Amino acid sequence: MSDDSADTERTREHPGSSTALDVAKAAKVSRIMVSRAFNPEASVRPDKRQHILDVAASLGYHPDMAARAMVTRRSNLVAVVVSTLANPWEAQEIDALTAVLQEDGLAVMVFRMEHKSRLQFNFAHIRAYRPAAVIAYMDDLKPHQLRRAFGNSPAIYPVYGAHAPTDHDEHMVDRLHVEQHEGIANAVRLLAGTGRKRLLYVRGEGAASDLDRVDALEEALAEHSIVFEAAIDGNFDYATTRAAVINYWRREGQPDAIFAANDTSAFGAIDALRYDLGVSVPQQCAVVGFDNIREAAWQAYNLTTIGVDLRERVQALRRMVAARVSEPRARSMVETIRARLVVRGTA
Amino acid sequence: MSDDSADTERTREHPGSSTALDVAKAAKVSRIMVSRAFNPEASVRPDKRQHILDVAASLGYHPDMAARAMVTRRSNLVAVVVSTLANPWEAQEIDALTAVLQEDGLAVMVFRMEHKSRLQFNFAHIRAYRPAAVIAYMDDLKPHQLRRAFGNSPAIYPVYGAHAPTDHDEHMVDRLHVEQHEGIANAVRLLAGTGRKRLLYVRGEGAASDLDRVDALEEALAEHSIVFEAAIDGNFDYATTRAAVINYWRREGQPDAIFAANDTSAFGAIDALRYDLGVSVPQQCAVVGFDNIREAAWQAYNLTTIGVDLRERVQALRRMVAARVSEPRARSMVETIRARLVVRGTA
Repeated sequence: MSDDSADTERTREHPGSSTALDVAKAAKVSRIMVSRAFNPEASVRPDKRQHILDVAASLGYHPDMAARAMVTRRSNLVAVVVSTLANPWEAQEIDALTAVLQEDGLAVMVFRMEHKSRLQFNFAHIRAYRPAAVIAYMDDLKPHQLRRAFGNSPAIYPVYGAHAPTDHDEHMVDRLHVEQHEGIANAVRLLAGTGRKRLLYVRGEGAASDLDRVDALEEALAEHSIVFEAAIDGNFDYATTRAAVINYWRREGQPDAIFAANDTSAFGAIDALRYDLGVSVPQQCAVVGFDNIREAAWQAYNLTTIGVDLRERVQALRRMVAARVSEPRARSMVETIRARLVVRGTA
Repeated sequence: MSDDSADTERTREHPGSSTALDVAKAAKVSRIMVSRAFNPEASVRPDKRQHILDVAASLGYHPDMAARAMVTRRSNLVAVVVSTLANPWEAQEIDALTAVLQEDGLAVMVFRMEHKSRLQFNFAHIRAYRPAAVIAYMDDLKPHQLRRAFGNSPAIYPVYGAHAPTDHDEHMVDRLHVEQHEGIANAVRLLAGTGRKRLLYVRGEGAASDLDRVDALEEALAEHSIVFEAAIDGNFDYATTRAAVINYWRREGQPDAIFAANDTSAFGAIDALRYDLGVSVPQQCAVVGFDNIREAAWQAYNLTTIGVDLRERVQALRRMVAARVSEPRARSMVETIRARLVVRGTA
């Protein structure tokens, strides 16, 4: 039996059987220093920390996280609450966020909450893991609901809207706020420049960010004398939007520009126009999306859209989480990032 | 101050301050029954369990998961290990999986492991949470690596390949195995029926499932006298595939069929053909993908592809996790599900 197999056997029978003291001896540091190396909040020289983590890895050692959470009454878990992971926007953001939080010694739990009816139960479940932070992507949750649910855990609430936090919201939770006015104004200027006269808006029903988007859009359209023809529901979804655009076009009216509340619904609008209605994009009808997901650059869509750089979003969330982990009791924070127009082929 | 605000204040200061005894009294059941209701392994009448969970939710009670993990030496966590969440296939599967595992009283942690260099450290980190099960989506990990890392935790290893488990693999970890031979044979029959003569394969380099796919493909092509012209690397990725197809077409050869190892790379191939090379799909070149992600039904691609029903995959994983949670020491399991050809517009 080779050394490797012997090691396998030992690990199999007693996983995690190495102790912090074993690591301390092998790395020639103190027991306390091993503990500090595994604590993201402790300041340790980076090369020293790496050395200790390498030695620990070679011995198969990692501190027991349940025990640590018991002792410190906190975990290094970040709970991400999301209505779905299956949409590209959420998937791409949570993927990048998980990567940077792991680098910071944190770990991500994902909670899927589709139904608001079980809200209190789900919140209690999440709280039971004592997360160091909660990041809620649910657009229809109110800050006070999060505040109530996660009283002692900092809750970060990524808000994608053009509105300033209200007095009521303030000091409730941390907020990542996307300023979208300028991006929308630039998109409307682009549409006006190519002579568009009548715009159809495809909204994501029920989303708080949507109300603000409509305000920004109406303001910009008025400035350029483009008619806000109607808003229809697309549910942030390809199939719903495609059917809704077909239906609108055949029964209600034929706009020369469509603005969709996210890129996935913009794709549904483009396919409805091109394949179901025989309308050329952008010649007969321009389409603008929102988010700038990866798929917006796919040549079949080549979508003009408004979006915030993924890296910028994720780094802002990372800073907020790190600040919360080191100062759980600090005043609530708001970071603002800016959405920009990305011009491609559909407008 | 309203009642609601008073309640908010109390929750804020003492979240989770209700006890199991409070719940037992309010639900008119025993303290033990409350504990059983929160234990996915305990058999409790569904309506009784729901009543207890509802009462607990109304009181903001949930058992402390760190404490429970300390006592039982097990958690109700399922660790999902994935190289990226940003690709549609992974995002759609993990989304559906998270939903059903939550229904079963389990919670999902996501670990992103891009670099095999930190394998031992990452495994030690995951082990530290005492997961009840580990589901590894990393195609380039070997069963014995998982077995070694998660000796005492059941590791489930979704394998998408046509090969039978080797002797070496057997009894190592649980496996979800996708039988893809038949789907590939049907796809090749379809290509032969429309007179295709030369096929280019776009592979995902390094993936174990890929080797098996190539075997199945070569066998089916030989049967129909279609030439396996070449295999190029697409990295399971839109942009890599698009560039590789352009390059191949200009320098190497012009096949009349392309088979891609996943749908996202099939989209890259389609866009390369249509927009970069001016080749019509499917008239001049057919394209077949693998996975049947949601986007394959988008009209701009309308992709003919081979895939396993998402619900079927997720229910198989759910059964395997449930079996492991109730019998951690049971013999390793293999479930086999079948990939089927879905005919749309590209072949």
